[in-house]
Amino acid sequence: MHAQDTQDTLLQALRELDPETLVQDAKRVKRLLRDAHPAAIADALEALPPERRLPLWRRVPGQAKGDVLLEVHDEVRAELIRAADPDELVIAAQYLDMDELADIYGELPRAVVNAVVRAMDRQRKARLDAVLAYPEDTAGGLMNPDAISVRADATLRTVIRYLRRLHRSQGGLPEQTDTLMVVNREARYVGILHLADVVAQDPELTVAEVYDSSVEAIAADIPAARVARLFEDRDLTSAGVVDADGHLLGRITVDDVVDVIRDEADHNLMSPAGVSEEEDMFGPVWRRAWHRNLWLGINLLTAFVAAAVIALFQDTIDHIVALAVLMPIVASMGGIAGTQTLTLVIRGIALEQVSTANARWLLSKEMLVGIINGLVWAVVVAFAAALWFDSPPIGAIIAAAMLTTLLFAALSGALIPLLLDKLGIDPALAGGVVLTTVTDVVGFLSFLGLATWYLL
Amino acid sequence: MHAQDTQDTLLQALRELDPETLVQDAKRVKRLLRDAHPAAIADALEALPPERRLPLWRRVPGQAKGDVLLEVHDEVRAELIRAADPDELVIAAQYLDMDELADIYGELPRAVVNAVVRAMDRQRKARLDAVLAYPEDTAGGLMNPDAISVRADATLRTVIRYLRRLHRSQGGLPEQTDTLMVVNREARYVGILHLADVVAQDPELTVAEVYDSSVEAIAADIPAARVARLFEDRDLTSAGVVDADGHLLGRITVDDVVDVIRDEADHNLMSPAGVSEEEDMFGPVWRRAWHRNLWLGINLLTAFVAAAVIALFQDTIDHIVALAVLMPIVASMGGIAGTQTLTLVIRGIALEQVSTANARWLLSKEMLVGIINGLVWAVVVAFAAALWFDSPPIGAIIAAAMLTTLLFAALSGALIPLLLDKLGIDPALAGGVVLTTVTDVVGFLSFLGLATWYLL
Repeated sequence: MHAQDTQDTLLQALRELDPETLVQDAKRVKRLLRDAHPAAIADALEALPPERRLPLWRRVPGQAKGDVLLEVHDEVRAELIRAADPDELVIAAQYLDMDELADIYGELPRAVVNAVVRAMDRQRKARLDAVLAYPEDTAGGLMNPDAISVRADATLRTVIRYLRRLHRSQGGLPEQTDTLMVVNREARYVGILHLADVVAQDPELTVAEVYDSSVEAIAADIPAARVARLFEDRDLTSAGVVDADGHLLGRITVDDVVDVIRDEADHNLMSPAGVSEEEDMFGPVWRRAWHRNLWLGINLLTAFVAAAVIALFQDTIDHIVALAVLMPIVASMGGIAGTQTLTLVIRGIALEQVSTANARWLLSKEMLVGIINGLVWAVVVAFAAALWFDSPPIGAIIAAAMLTTLLFAALSGALIPLLLDKLGIDPALAGGVVLTTVTDVVGFLSFLGLATWYLL
Repeated sequence: MHAQDTQDTLLQALRELDPETLVQDAKRVKRLLRDAHPAAIADALEALPPERRLPLWRRVPGQAKGDVLLEVHDEVRAELIRAADPDELVIAAQYLDMDELADIYGELPRAVVNAVVRAMDRQRKARLDAVLAYPEDTAGGLMNPDAISVRADATLRTVIRYLRRLHRSQGGLPEQTDTLMVVNREARYVGILHLADVVAQDPELTVAEVYDSSVEAIAADIPAARVARLFEDRDLTSAGVVDADGHLLGRITVDDVVDVIRDEADHNLMSPAGVSEEEDMFGPVWRRAWHRNLWLGINLLTAFVAAAVIALFQDTIDHIVALAVLMPIVASMGGIAGTQTLTLVIRGIALEQVSTANARWLLSKEMLVGIINGLVWAVVVAFAAALWFDSPPIGAIIAAAMLTTLLFAALSGALIPLLLDKLGIDPALAGGVVLTTVTDVVGFLSFLGLATWYLL
């Protein structure tokens, strides 16, 4: 049986548990939960309506609860934490790695946190503090302080002996250990040592002879998004994290980076619609309705701005009602063209391909694209409108408005995200709303304005 | 110096190379290119306008060219391949892993491919064929056939000896080797063996005693997106790929999975705007203008549909011109509300949290959200419109239209992606356009229709 099949079957079975089974067939539920991976349990919980979610959550074994909490979205996590027994949460937290614990540390009830910290030895406490010292979305917040470090002058034989001793004393090496961190006498990071080299090279060689110095360390204070880009670009699976003096603080493993990439992707996908990637899709209707209202409210304001522009030209529309029919076409095309440029520029900024160095160049090219497409669609729309309303002047006016609007759309699509980024506002979140306000206003203003000037 | 700083400096320097330096200061360019990571070179090339891109590309060392080609987007890659010397491409291709070669295999000129294949020994040729036998976006297409497999009855000491022999004979183990694949007598996959266990456990133990049987194999024919979800959920760094009989074919490493996740994210971000994630942002203006026209054309058609709806009510607008002012507000709010639902459902489908099992439940909840928010904004807009135009009837009409439109928006936002998904059409690509057509039509129809019926 393949990985995906087993978990699919479990997931399906978990989702289909009806309330009676949950109460009556405890054995079957227990077996399902024991065999399912925490991620599958998390998926099943998220896809269940609240009344079935909590009974299932209560039956998740204590040692899996921590991993499940890590996998669910913020809103669902808060709900599950509220519904859990504090003693169970303490047990769940004790099964987590330091970086994982740090991720949900602030969300656990104070009493649980205190109990967990009280049960830690001095070394573990110091490690937790090290991670908590950095914001969650930096390299320091992502790192796990459980890195195994070796000195460059040791032989591979010594390293192997050391690893075997560690394994015996701790009951295993830290998870995801595929490299060791190489440090010098001052505990400063100098490179990484692949386990593949430890195991496959001549054991009499020294670490200095086989380690990989090309993988430079990551500074603890750089943003998580940059860490993700480094891992992607270099095909890293783990990397050392250092403080400002180059001292090794811990390591980041690729599994955490994958989560960063996924979260970033979710954010970029959901923000433009004004919905949060942490929203619980199966949460209470009232809360969900409320969450979306901020965006609807902002949009209403911008819609009234556009309406106010139209209101300036009521007399014109009163004379030529065809204008009311055609005006949404101009605004809509402007919105689409602007969004195309906006999307490209937002991604360019995220990939750090767009900077002040080439912004001017890019802007001029986007405007050229705007002019070309403006001309193309101006001609098409002019003919269509002129034929429809049997009025060449209307065709001429809509053509001029279309060209103006697409040109402005290109300009705004390129400038707005650059400006927002400079102001420290997330362009993925606010870019679309600002852009469509501009394209609506320009679209209505140019079309109705030209019509007033020319036709009346 | 930290990883990001070095590469930032190199990237900056590469981008700022002016055409004269490229020609005259060959030494400096060579040094920069030698120190830069292929990903940094790729970034620099993508961010350069064409007239500076190709001269720099020609100076990239042959052994790095293959990696650079892998890192750039499709359009840029095609341009770089066209501009490269065939002999150099042959060298570049020979530096690539099998899965990497397979990724760009179809894009290389026939003569280059033939030369590369001719130079391969029988084993490498068989491996290439194994990867090429599967579509690029499946587990088989992602896999690298270079997996090292061991038998369960071997001792760890034997495994270590085998790895040392492999290392000597091949000048190193395959990159990213952090696990070995464990197979039975019939070469069927049974689990993975972490190098950490090989190196740290008692060498007299057998593989059977220490290997990890919980990591199930991945079937070669499952889609790449599912592979990515498996890696994410299980925190995998590598996994075995098997054929229908469970025979080990190769392995997938997390670096390839990271690329899949990023590509998927890019696709979801760019598709709704009708721009391709593979578009060359610095490519020729004509090509970029052309690429975006398909989407503008489709949008124009839908805009004309909305205009046709308005045209039905020309007489009404002629009587009450305020309707022309207010009508875009209704349509716009419908578009936003619908997009919110659409975005959530598209993500739910991608995460496999939305299925036919809970679609009906979700639909009813989304409609409730639509009703709640419809009522809230109906009241707000009714007051604003009634005050603005000093006409309570207009307030009542826009309230009713708003409620109707937001309800339809919720319904379409949930149904359209489910329907498109069933039809095998990518909801991320087509969902938005279909949705806004529906919300525009319903918005104009309900508002103008009610006004006609009630006010005339």
